[in-house]
Amino acid sequence: MAHNRLTQLLDQYTSGYSLAQSFYTDPLIFEADWEHIWKKYWLFVGSTAEIPKPGNYFTYQAHHDSVIIIRGDQGEVHALYNTCRHRGSLVCLEERGHTSKLMCPYHQWVYNKDGSLFKARLMPGDFDKSAYGLHPVQVRVVEGLIFISLSSNPPDFDKVVQDFAPFVKPYKLDQAKVAYRKRYELRTNWKLIAENFRECYHCGPAHPEYCRAVIGANLTESAAQVLPERQQAWERKGLSVKGIDFENDSFHFAVRYPLRPGVESYSTNGKAVAIPMGDHTDFDAGVLGLVCYPNFWMDAVSDYVWTMRITATSASQCLVDLTWLVDSQAVEGQDYTIERLTDFWRITGEQDWKLCENNFKGIESSHYGPGPYAPVEADVAKFVDWYIDRLREGVSTAVAF
Amino acid sequence: MAHNRLTQLLDQYTSGYSLAQSFYTDPLIFEADWEHIWKKYWLFVGSTAEIPKPGNYFTYQAHHDSVIIIRGDQGEVHALYNTCRHRGSLVCLEERGHTSKLMCPYHQWVYNKDGSLFKARLMPGDFDKSAYGLHPVQVRVVEGLIFISLSSNPPDFDKVVQDFAPFVKPYKLDQAKVAYRKRYELRTNWKLIAENFRECYHCGPAHPEYCRAVIGANLTESAAQVLPERQQAWERKGLSVKGIDFENDSFHFAVRYPLRPGVESYSTNGKAVAIPMGDHTDFDAGVLGLVCYPNFWMDAVSDYVWTMRITATSASQCLVDLTWLVDSQAVEGQDYTIERLTDFWRITGEQDWKLCENNFKGIESSHYGPGPYAPVEADVAKFVDWYIDRLREGVSTAVAF
Amino acid sequence: MAHNRLTQLLDQYTSGYSLAQSFYTDPLIFEADWEHIWKKYWLFVGSTAEIPKPGNYFTYQAHHDSVIIIRGDQGEVHALYNTCRHRGSLVCLEERGHTSKLMCPYHQWVYNKDGSLFKARLMPGDFDKSAYGLHPVQVRVVEGLIFISLSSNPPDFDKVVQDFAPFVKPYKLDQAKVAYRKRYELRTNWKLIAENFRECYHCGPAHPEYCRAVIGANLTESAAQVLPERQQAWERKGLSVKGIDFENDSFHFAVRYPLRPGVESYSTNGKAVAIPMGDHTDFDAGVLGLVCYPNFWMDAVSDYVWTMRITATSASQCLVDLTWLVDSQAVEGQDYTIERLTDFWRITGEQDWKLCENNFKGIESSHYGPGPYAPVEADVAKFVDWYIDRLREGVSTAVAF
Repeated sequence: MAHNRLTQLLDQYTSGYSLAQSFYTDPLIFEADWEHIWKKYWLFVGSTAEIPKPGNYFTYQAHHDSVIIIRGDQGEVHALYNTCRHRGSLVCLEERGHTSKLMCPYHQWVYNKDGSLFKARLMPGDFDKSAYGLHPVQVRVVEGLIFISLSSNPPDFDKVVQDFAPFVKPYKLDQAKVAYRKRYELRTNWKLIAENFRECYHCGPAHPEYCRAVIGANLTESAAQVLPERQQAWERKGLSVKGIDFENDSFHFAVRYPLRPGVESYSTNGKAVAIPMGDHTDFDAGVLGLVCYPNFWMDAVSDYVWTMRITATSASQCLVDLTWLVDSQAVEGQDYTIERLTDFWRITGEQDWKLCENNFKGIESSHYGPGPYAPVEADVAKFVDWYIDRLREGVSTAVAF
Repeated sequence: MAHNRLTQLLDQYTSGYSLAQSFYTDPLIFEADWEHIWKKYWLFVGSTAEIPKPGNYFTYQAHHDSVIIIRGDQGEVHALYNTCRHRGSLVCLEERGHTSKLMCPYHQWVYNKDGSLFKARLMPGDFDKSAYGLHPVQVRVVEGLIFISLSSNPPDFDKVVQDFAPFVKPYKLDQAKVAYRKRYELRTNWKLIAENFRECYHCGPAHPEYCRAVIGANLTESAAQVLPERQQAWERKGLSVKGIDFENDSFHFAVRYPLRPGVESYSTNGKAVAIPMGDHTDFDAGVLGLVCYPNFWMDAVSDYVWTMRITATSASQCLVDLTWLVDSQAVEGQDYTIERLTDFWRITGEQDWKLCENNFKGIESSHYGPGPYAPVEADVAKFVDWYIDRLREGVSTAVAF
Repeated sequence: MAHNRLTQLLDQYTSGYSLAQSFYTDPLIFEADWEHIWKKYWLFVGSTAEIPKPGNYFTYQAHHDSVIIIRGDQGEVHALYNTCRHRGSLVCLEERGHTSKLMCPYHQWVYNKDGSLFKARLMPGDFDKSAYGLHPVQVRVVEGLIFISLSSNPPDFDKVVQDFAPFVKPYKLDQAKVAYRKRYELRTNWKLIAENFRECYHCGPAHPEYCRAVIGANLTESAAQVLPERQQAWERKGLSVKGIDFENDSFHFAVRYPLRPGVESYSTNGKAVAIPMGDHTDFDAGVLGLVCYPNFWMDAVSDYVWTMRITATSASQCLVDLTWLVDSQAVEGQDYTIERLTDFWRITGEQDWKLCENNFKGIESSHYGPGPYAPVEADVAKFVDWYIDRLREGVSTAVAF
């Protein structure tokens, strides 16, 4: 997008109001989103529980790039661009698999798990294999949560690791069991999902199941009365309770909040849906909520972890990948059923997808214009501010170089 | 589209020849069509018979805009942009429905039927509701036919009302019954349908059913012999007979013409397919044909009214919505059957859709060029002249401002 | 595509390496491919065996152009743009058919098989029919193989005719029988298929059936030992043996090579799958391979001819049309079955389509870059050189005018 056009749109932004139409619908803004945010920041791709053994891998499609995430021989995680250095073929064709070496299916060039070129048959004797490894992708693992960055110079991630680790550790995600995955293809802009997940102005009418579980979600109650007692109880068990808020240009968030008294889990009847997970021994841990912009949301209750990975695929489309993880010892049919485990977030998620899709359709109107956020949507306004600041930063940097 | 490119194409136009390829296939011309014609002129959306009671509504998708057409408490018709003034969600999600108030499904902002904002919960005390009504769309009703304009300064419509009203009044459309609707998605440019409906050069070979009903449609006969007697008979009954032709820059047309002697209706066997409609008491009213550019065609016989609403959705695509209306007292299964009522125009229409789609495919050729209209296609040439004049007008106005 | 951008890409090309991403994925390069190669060079469309009698025709969609290929009254072949000179409708609606005259389905303008306008009803008396024939397309027939050019000044084709004719003649293609056709819609760039068909670096692992039939295909053997004996035997029978290589800017190729001893045909078990074709009396003719850039490949064994017609439909898509021809006397069910006849090339072809589609997917990566061709891929490098030279030629010519 011509910088002057984008700059003009950024100049017209008014904090406290929803974004102008172009930010949601223009393919050139979509490219700017990738250039200045998605290709620069850290993207959640999955958990180490999905690749428990050396040679286990999965692939993630990030805009034009397929990325291989593979477990190395020492348990480490490698992320590699999935394009052979010979003639460019995909090396891994499947979304998930296991392999001792990565072999291109076209002409059988063979790569090690760390991406280095192991063998390229029939190449000349002076061929320098060391120059033809698969291109690496930056990767960081936080207590089993895998994040990648397509940038060679990504924002610092140490603070995220430091803040997230104590919260996530008790769930023992690295040894967890992937119980279920579900993918949605939505016709909406990714930012409308991010906005949706930052407010509960819509929760009362839209999410009866969610409001039955969470105190205050309907905006007519407050969790203030039960919170101090809960926090003390959590601290006694060694659970982290000090929330991490978005600050200035930070892009991650963590909070632990209580379930309604008597509610054990995020489930449609309030009862636990699996056995306590990891270090937990009861159903008393409340909800741990994590966010890492632009594409990661996680809610953990005592008996399961739910992750949401968003992938923006065009201005008007995104993929949402939901994953449910349970304790490594949980046995399907005995300790949990897929239906009960997933009901709560399938129902709640699908309520949101519909809202976000209809929000997008209305925004396509020639008469849509930025509207005022309500006071209870202050966190949405903050997300949108963060987003605009990232584009401003990107534009100014791009001009400078 | 760059004005100089469009201006160049307009300069190259030769009256009497079909349009240059770009006018039919170029996405930028499609945008110009919307800018200078579809968003400026009056679009037929449906009839009041579809929304008989206060709170009945339907929506119409006009390019990027969803428009709500809703019956008000005094029977008046309101047209509103279907985008919430809060965060832009669609307010009405369904194509047809009934509601006492219009409530946005996202955060429950509530609007009155006239679009004014009734309630916005949890907004600050100083929030000015009067500034946040749904944006209005211009709307006019002619004896039950509803037209909207997306322009804030549309062409004068009084002459259309004045000319159409006496023709339409006897059919009592406001109290009619919607018997059937059918939608077609066609791969053709909207102007090729408009051209098709302005000539009968193709009728003889293409439309055997139509030619059996209409004298002269095959171009080998003339209605001249029966016309004077017919017109006198119609006048005696108080039916309008004086046709309204396209003139200079006018965009509407009306004509009453006779059916072949012995033919009572537009039907495959020439017999009536329903009871006489509205004020009619026999099957002797011939055919009333109305056109209003760019998207309205209507043919009314003594026992039913058929409307065609075209919607241009891209250079290469359009939607055609056909509606059959019968007298309010007509009972399905007793006075009419869907099959017999709709056979004639489904068959004739589908013959035309095929011709228009193949016309478009051939025009995509690198070797397509404007060809000469035959003398019997003079009305097609006039439509194309009108179209070119509208773009010229639009371009010159746009340059002036 | 802006010439300076294309020129820059052409300047950056390094021979011996695969092309830069844009050449495979950019829609503007796709248009340049059509402008400088596909619309200029000769395109294979089919064989005269498909239109044995006067009035038999088929159509071919070349980018935006539908072309009619029709057999004339003296057995000659005409190629005509399929767009009526009146209002542009397609004249032939079906992909294959028979007609004594070409009649436009819209207003019944009638053309002779040579494209001249025969009749245009209801046109004015002074209408000059001679000025309104269907636009002709250049066409050449080589022993039953039909090639067209959309250029008014195509490259010389005499050398191709002269080189191909003696090779093709013994198969008596003009009187052959079309046994089977199969179409594939692939998501890949057309050049990746051309590259795939110029090397056997991939054959060993990818094509077990092919390697069982062809000596040397797996690159671990050589046909050198059997070749002299084979060539002498072929010459004794009057079969052409002197291969035609690509030279400088030539765009055609012919070769005859031996099958593995004991193998009679391209079949999954090495046995013949039909009766000897044309002048052949045994299964001893080896394989005749023909190529004509950009879209023609043919492999002929003693008992059948297989042609491949590629059509580039976008940067990321192409159609592949395979046709199997057998001797005119061969009777299905008795002399051949569709399954056995087509197994070999369906299996081998589908292996290649998968490779070419995955090659394309990997090339879409932001980290794809031109990789080095192996020495055994020298012919691929030559094709890519040829391709780049054609664009350079096109760009320089376009600049000059």
